[in-house]
Amino acid sequence: MTIDHKHELDQQDFLIKAAELLKAYVASSSCSSKPVVELACPDKLAAAFAAAGVPLKLDDHQAAAETSNELIAALQTTLKHSVRTSHPLFFNQLYARVEPVGVAADWAVAATNTNVHTYEVAPVFSLVEAALLDKVARVIGFRQHDGLLVPGGSISNTYALHLARFRKDPAVKTRGAAGGPVLVGFTSSHAHYSYEKAAHLTGLGTDNMVAVEADAQGEMLPHALEAAVAAARKQGKVPFFVGLTAGTTVTGGFDPIAAIAPIARRHGMWLHVDGSWGASLLLSPRHRGLLAGIEQADSVGWNAHKMLGLPSQCAAFVSRHPGVLQATNATHAPYLFQPDKLHGEYDIGDKSIQCGRKADAFKWWLQWKAVGDAGFAARVEHNIELAEHVEACVAAAGGAFLMAVPRVAANVCFWYVPPSLRPFDPAAASPEQWAALGRVAPAIKARMQQAGDAMIGYQPLGQLPNFFRLVFANCVGVSRQQLQQLLQRIDQYGRDL
Amino acid sequence: MTIDHKHELDQQDFLIKAAELLKAYVASSSCSSKPVVELACPDKLAAAFAAAGVPLKLDDHQAAAETSNELIAALQTTLKHSVRTSHPLFFNQLYARVEPVGVAADWAVAATNTNVHTYEVAPVFSLVEAALLDKVARVIGFRQHDGLLVPGGSISNTYALHLARFRKDPAVKTRGAAGGPVLVGFTSSHAHYSYEKAAHLTGLGTDNMVAVEADAQGEMLPHALEAAVAAARKQGKVPFFVGLTAGTTVTGGFDPIAAIAPIARRHGMWLHVDGSWGASLLLSPRHRGLLAGIEQADSVGWNAHKMLGLPSQCAAFVSRHPGVLQATNATHAPYLFQPDKLHGEYDIGDKSIQCGRKADAFKWWLQWKAVGDAGFAARVEHNIELAEHVEACVAAAGGAFLMAVPRVAANVCFWYVPPSLRPFDPAAASPEQWAALGRVAPAIKARMQQAGDAMIGYQPLGQLPNFFRLVFANCVGVSRQQLQQLLQRIDQYGRDL
Repeated sequence: MTIDHKHELDQQDFLIKAAELLKAYVASSSCSSKPVVELACPDKLAAAFAAAGVPLKLDDHQAAAETSNELIAALQTTLKHSVRTSHPLFFNQLYARVEPVGVAADWAVAATNTNVHTYEVAPVFSLVEAALLDKVARVIGFRQHDGLLVPGGSISNTYALHLARFRKDPAVKTRGAAGGPVLVGFTSSHAHYSYEKAAHLTGLGTDNMVAVEADAQGEMLPHALEAAVAAARKQGKVPFFVGLTAGTTVTGGFDPIAAIAPIARRHGMWLHVDGSWGASLLLSPRHRGLLAGIEQADSVGWNAHKMLGLPSQCAAFVSRHPGVLQATNATHAPYLFQPDKLHGEYDIGDKSIQCGRKADAFKWWLQWKAVGDAGFAARVEHNIELAEHVEACVAAAGGAFLMAVPRVAANVCFWYVPPSLRPFDPAAASPEQWAALGRVAPAIKARMQQAGDAMIGYQPLGQLPNFFRLVFANCVGVSRQQLQQLLQRIDQYGRDL
Repeated sequence: MTIDHKHELDQQDFLIKAAELLKAYVASSSCSSKPVVELACPDKLAAAFAAAGVPLKLDDHQAAAETSNELIAALQTTLKHSVRTSHPLFFNQLYARVEPVGVAADWAVAATNTNVHTYEVAPVFSLVEAALLDKVARVIGFRQHDGLLVPGGSISNTYALHLARFRKDPAVKTRGAAGGPVLVGFTSSHAHYSYEKAAHLTGLGTDNMVAVEADAQGEMLPHALEAAVAAARKQGKVPFFVGLTAGTTVTGGFDPIAAIAPIARRHGMWLHVDGSWGASLLLSPRHRGLLAGIEQADSVGWNAHKMLGLPSQCAAFVSRHPGVLQATNATHAPYLFQPDKLHGEYDIGDKSIQCGRKADAFKWWLQWKAVGDAGFAARVEHNIELAEHVEACVAAAGGAFLMAVPRVAANVCFWYVPPSLRPFDPAAASPEQWAALGRVAPAIKARMQQAGDAMIGYQPLGQLPNFFRLVFANCVGVSRQQLQQLLQRIDQYGRDL
C-alpha cells in the first residue's frame, strides 16, 4: 500500500492555519479580559469535541479527517477549554506565563525534530546544550562540571540519588543493590514528593529516605540532620545522600546549604540541591544569598520552566564532578556511539538514562540571549517584589487574611478568614474553628474556577488546614493592582462562608 | 526592579517572524534538493554563530539581544546547520520525516504550556491522553489497561522493570532492594541498551539482567531463555522479568512473543514488550502477525515518534494491569492531589515518576484523527515495501552489496563491497578481508556527510564488522527511485576503497 496523498488531508495547509491560530493565542494568552479557564467537567468537554465534529474518543475503526478545517476545529476546541496558564491570574502551579521567545524556540525544536544523543544528528543542539550548562555551572559557582538537560525536576532528583549511590558503592552497577549495603538518604520533611518516588524507582526504599525535621518555613534544621544520621548509623545503615531544597514547594523555604554542607562532607554524603523552583534566585544579586554555599553541592537541579518563563520542560541537572554521568550511566552501545565516526567525541547521549532526549537547552539558551542576565534578574526580582506586596496586603487586611507560614521568597501562604470566623486567633482557636477554616480555600477556589477569573493552589500542611499558596512563577506583565483585585475577589467569594 | 518592557526586545515580534521561518522550514524540510546536513566541526559552527552576531557561548555577564533580528539570525543559523531529519535521504536513526500535523500539535503543546499531572490544569489534555491510551490498548488487544505517555522508550523499559519488581516484591517500595531477594531479569542479546541503563538505575544491577541468546535476525531463542532461567535459579536468584523486543534496534527482529509468554507465565515473570520501534506494525493488518501474542504481555512500550512521524517525544507505556502504576508510584502529595478539589478523580500525575509531564498524547491523538487507522497502516506498509525493495536491489547487485543479516521488517543491514574486495565470500574470507570490509561503511558515511546528500547509520554486531543499517522510520514521500539512487551513490563513494 502506498500513501495516496491526493486523498489525504493537506497537512501543510493545516500547519499554516494552526500557526496563525497559535500566534494569536500566544499574543492574547496573557490578556486578563479572557477567563483563565472555562471550567468543564469531562462530560461537557466530550460534548464540546463531539459538537466540533472531532470526538475525543478514537474509534475501533478510526476514520481520517477529511478536511484540515475539521482538525482546526479540534485545535480551537482544545485551546478554548484548556487552562490559560499564561493568564495574569494563574497562580496555581510553580510555572506560569510562558514567554514568546521560549515558545518560538520550542517550535523550532519540534520542527527540526532531532535528538541530542549524538553530535552527528544534533551538531548545533549538542553545542548549545554544552554552552548552556557551562553558563549554568558558572552561575552556581562550580569550577568544573558535568550535566544534562532532563525531563523535569523529579528526574533531576532521581539522577542525584542514582549518582550518589554509584559514588558510594560502584559495584551496585553490576551486582545490584540486593547484595549491597543498606544505604540511607536524608531530605527535609518539606522536600518534594519526587525524592520519595526516586526512592521507589532506584530501589532505595522509602524507609531509607529519612524526612528530617524542618522549621515553620520548611527549612531543614541542621541539628535534626545530625541526629537523623546518628540514628541511621545506629541501625547499621550507611548514610550516602542529603537532598536539600532551594525553594520548597509549599512554603518556598530554602534549606541552609552552607550549614548542611560540612555535615554532608563529614559523613561522606552526596549533597544535592533541588533548585527546581528556587535556583533561579541565583540570577538575582539581591536574592542569591538564600542559596549561599550552593557551590559546595555535589549536584544541583534547576528548572527554567518555572521562574524563568520557558515552556515546559526545560530542566538542568548539573554536578561538579566531571565524568560522573558517563561513569554511572554509560553502556557504550556500539550501534549509536560508534568509536570510528566523525566527531563522536562530542556525543553526550551515553551520559543519560534516556536514549531519545529533546533539545530543551535551546529554549533556555535563546531566551538568555534575548533577555540577558539583567532580564532574568529583573524577572526574579519582580516576582519577589509582588510576593512581598501580597504579604504586606495580608498584614494590612485587618484579620480578613492571615499568613499561614512566614514568607521567605516567592511563595505566600495565607488563609482567607471569612467574617463568620473573625477574629481568628491561631493560639486560641478550637478544633471546630480550625476545621471550618480548612473548608474555606477549597470552596473559594471552586467558585473562582467556575467564574474562570483566577486559579490559585491550596493545600494542608502538617497540622495546618488548607491555606492558599500564591506562587510567583513568572510574573512578566502582572501588576500590584491585579494582585489587590485578586485579594478583593477572594474576599467577595468567601464572605458568606 | 520591575521589567522595563520598552527596553526589552519585542518577543511577540520575534515569535511572528520565527513562525514564518519555521512554517517555511517545515514545508521545505523534505525537499531533496537541499543537503541533509551541512557538516561542520564544532569550531566552524562556533564561527558561524559568531558571524551571525550571536555567539554560542553565554558570557559571564551575558547582555540581552537588542533586536529581534539578532535572534532571528540565531534561529536561521540553527536551522541551517542542523541535520534535516525530514530529508528523504535521512536514514540514520529510528525516527525521521516528521509530519506537519504532529509539528502543529507540538506547537500547541508549547503554546498552552501546561502539565498533565492534574485535571484542573489540563482538562483537555488529561482526557486526550486517556482516549489515546484506550485506543492503544485496544490495538494491542488488552481488555483492560493502565498507562502513561513517557519521555521515550528507555523510560518505558525502566517503568516495566520498576513495575515488575514491585509486583514480585511489594515490600521493595519501603524496605528497598538491599534487604530483599536477588531478582533476575532476561532480555535478548539484541535488546536495546536502555534495559542495561534501567538495570543500573533501578538498582537491579547488570549481573542480574541476563542477555539471552538470539538467532541471526536478533530474535530470542525460547530454549535459550529456559536454560538461562534454570541457570539463574541454580544461583539462588529469583526470575521476575522478561524484556522482549518488537523491532530490535540493529536487525529489526521480533522476539517470538507467543512462544515466550508461556515460559514467562510458568516462571512467574513479568512480560514486557519493548515495541518502541516495531509496535507500529500492529497498525498494519499485513504485518501485525510479527507481534502475535502481544496481548499476553504485562506491559508494552510504543514510540509514535519513530515509525508514525510524530515529533519526538511521543511514547506510550501501557500495562494490562489496571492500577499498577498508581500502586507502584503513588505518594499522594497533598499539595498537588488534593482530595477535596473539583474533578480530582481525573488526576493522573501520581502514576508517574515525573511531576511535570508534557501533553505528548495530543500529537498522536491529532495525527490519528488526521490520517485514521488506514493512514497509519499505509505508512507502515510503505516503509516495509521500501525495505523489501532495497533487499531486492542488494540481491540483484551482483556482489557489490551483501546482506549482513536477513531482513525481517523495516531494517536492511548490508555491506557495500568495494571492487577491491569482490567477490566477497563470507564463508571463506580471511580476517584481513573482514577487517577491510569493516572500514568501508565509516569511510563512505563520512564522505556522504561531507557531501551532505544522505545519512545512513552503520555499526558492528558481534563478530560482524561495520555494516550499513538502512531503517525505514517514516517514509512518507520517499520513492523507490530515490533509494536506488542512494545505493548508486554508495557505490560511487566506495568504488576506490
